[in-house]
Amino acid sequence: MKLNVAVLPGDGIGPEIVEQALKVTNAICARFGHELITKTGLVGAVAIDETGNPYPEETHQLCMDSDAVLFGAIGHPRFDNDPSAKVRPEQGLLAMRKKLGLYANIRPTITFPSLLDMSPLRRDRIEGADFVAIRELTGGIYFGQPQGRSEDGNTAYDTSIYTREEIERILKLAFEFAMQRRKKLTIVDKANVLATSRLWRTISQEMAPKYPEVEVEYMFVDNAAMQIIQWPKRFDVMVTENMFGDILTDEASVISGSLGLLPSASMGVHTSVFEPIHGSYPQAAGKNIANPCATILSAAMMFEYAFKLQDEAALITEAVNASIEAKAVSEDLAGEGGKALGTDEVGDWIVEYIRKK
Amino acid sequence: MKLNVAVLPGDGIGPEIVEQALKVTNAICARFGHELITKTGLVGAVAIDETGNPYPEETHQLCMDSDAVLFGAIGHPRFDNDPSAKVRPEQGLLAMRKKLGLYANIRPTITFPSLLDMSPLRRDRIEGADFVAIRELTGGIYFGQPQGRSEDGNTAYDTSIYTREEIERILKLAFEFAMQRRKKLTIVDKANVLATSRLWRTISQEMAPKYPEVEVEYMFVDNAAMQIIQWPKRFDVMVTENMFGDILTDEASVISGSLGLLPSASMGVHTSVFEPIHGSYPQAAGKNIANPCATILSAAMMFEYAFKLQDEAALITEAVNASIEAKAVSEDLAGEGGKALGTDEVGDWIVEYIRKK
Ligand SMILES: CC(C)[C@H](C(=O)O)[C@@H](O)C(=O)O
Ligand SMILES: CC(C)[C@H](C(=O)O)[C@@H](O)C(=O)O
Repeated sequence: MKLNVAVLPGDGIGPEIVEQALKVTNAICARFGHELITKTGLVGAVAIDETGNPYPEETHQLCMDSDAVLFGAIGHPRFDNDPSAKVRPEQGLLAMRKKLGLYANIRPTITFPSLLDMSPLRRDRIEGADFVAIRELTGGIYFGQPQGRSEDGNTAYDTSIYTREEIERILKLAFEFAMQRRKKLTIVDKANVLATSRLWRTISQEMAPKYPEVEVEYMFVDNAAMQIIQWPKRFDVMVTENMFGDILTDEASVISGSLGLLPSASMGVHTSVFEPIHGSYPQAAGKNIANPCATILSAAMMFEYAFKLQDEAALITEAVNASIEAKAVSEDLAGEGGKALGTDEVGDWIVEYIRKK
Repeated sequence: MKLNVAVLPGDGIGPEIVEQALKVTNAICARFGHELITKTGLVGAVAIDETGNPYPEETHQLCMDSDAVLFGAIGHPRFDNDPSAKVRPEQGLLAMRKKLGLYANIRPTITFPSLLDMSPLRRDRIEGADFVAIRELTGGIYFGQPQGRSEDGNTAYDTSIYTREEIERILKLAFEFAMQRRKKLTIVDKANVLATSRLWRTISQEMAPKYPEVEVEYMFVDNAAMQIIQWPKRFDVMVTENMFGDILTDEASVISGSLGLLPSASMGVHTSVFEPIHGSYPQAAGKNIANPCATILSAAMMFEYAFKLQDEAALITEAVNASIEAKAVSEDLAGEGGKALGTDEVGDWIVEYIRKK
């Protein structure tokens, strides 16, 4: 198969970790006989520096022409204390989501047996936790108009909007995920307060009969924020709107105790984007200490979701798990006194595993 | 001192737990020589049944004439699966907040030394955690207009609005809380996306120089959702807008592992309301098994915040802690094989402690 991948390394540790994921992707293509074509584009602070735009038109075209986008991370500390700066890296992210129609952000919550003790949660609460959080990514209060300030500057407003099409599209995906898994779907909303949530409920109640095998549960967002920590094992597939999803998926990411290992996929109308959930970690940039595994596992999601190549995805996941069991890990996972490998050495170890397997 | 308290037991276990808190309040007044005047009003499902209105005008007048409101809980399962029912108990809650100007919901996050193992979090992460979360309670997306659906019913919208006055009022309270405590204030927002958040930041940056001793930190809400679980001990005072506060305060309530113990205060323009953070727990209603301690500790907050009577508040808190240490607890805290007291027996134990002390 011919795989057209747009590569957007971004800022901070982005380039280093994407490099490892590309090595792994190449090794998989060599092993399974796929042809990999990659083109690299600018995004984030580095794109602002070179073009004045965090998501340049050229990068957008690259993505539009791709079958999948492998993304590193964006963000730079010089923007951190000025959230109202005219041009910001995050605008690039939001523009990319909107223009590529990336309507569904998918984050598996998985635990790694040998890393359970790194979690802030007790072992018995998380052992075996395995759920997927699906966040709507192009609607809600992130993009609703009007947004702004009154003329005197003393009142500010944001608007959350959802249309039937947006809601049906993401719920369809969520029901299908549930069908592929343990057939339990938790729809998180605030229907006791929000009109948008009530439309989500109306539509999900219309759709549910089409998936009679799926057990549907509604949960208010405040309750969900509790349950995720208290009983993470109770969830199978969780779906929610954009702002709630931003909060709850980050909350859920803490469960595994190893942020450096968590991948994500953003499914789109035009292409799909695969990226680690962690940020650009600027303090570590260029030091060869970052953990590349979240990006490598994002490449596994790319094989599974963008190319429907399950065996390829499974081999990457197996190789990453093997590296963790073998303690061939970067410093975040090495533990006190443990030996830490460099970012590139972790990549090499995983490539080697794939070659030999 | 003459203490005018409006008592709103509400639904489910509300009446039983409020009864215990009143017993304790009476014991404190007897011991310290205060005159307690109470008047009881209807709120919630029980108010809908009797008057058609979850927050009847009569109840509102009672609250307006009071110095403090002691509140139980509201909510009834018959409303649970129909969030668009015309009249709902929660509307009573929201109406009460708006009409009494209850602009600040205050929730201490405390841990109880002998109960640390009930937490889903590891002991070392939570031992000594002690922070106060302050949630704006009368603004934002809860009350913003327009809210509703398009004519064809296929688009829904909500509006979040904040004015300078609303933001200044809550931030002033938050800064003052920080001054009374460890002088660290975390302001949680989503200023990289929301216009309302950017107004919060502008105003807080204007106000901060007035409190030079307070260390101010800004944190995005998604990051806060992570930090609360990962490093709860890092927080002192946290303040945020209504919707974020709804989610984060419920998330934080899980830390202690004993929801049945957590009180809250809602400070208002006209009076203040004191209530447990847990719900009406209808399955337990009338069974004399509910834990009254959250409501009793809410009465302690009433003495402290509404009446500025620190010693009275401290004695209640001491008595509750003593009951826990003595294992004079309801079934939720009794543990396997432990002996559980009834709701009224826990109340009696605490009253007895106050009398004898
Ligand atoms: C950077 C920010 C705009 C973004 C979001 O809120 O969506 C980030 O938090 C994320 O979750 O990808
Ligand atoms: C019942 C509901 C409207 C309410 C809220 O969202 O404010 C509740 O969750 C709370 O936190 O008191």
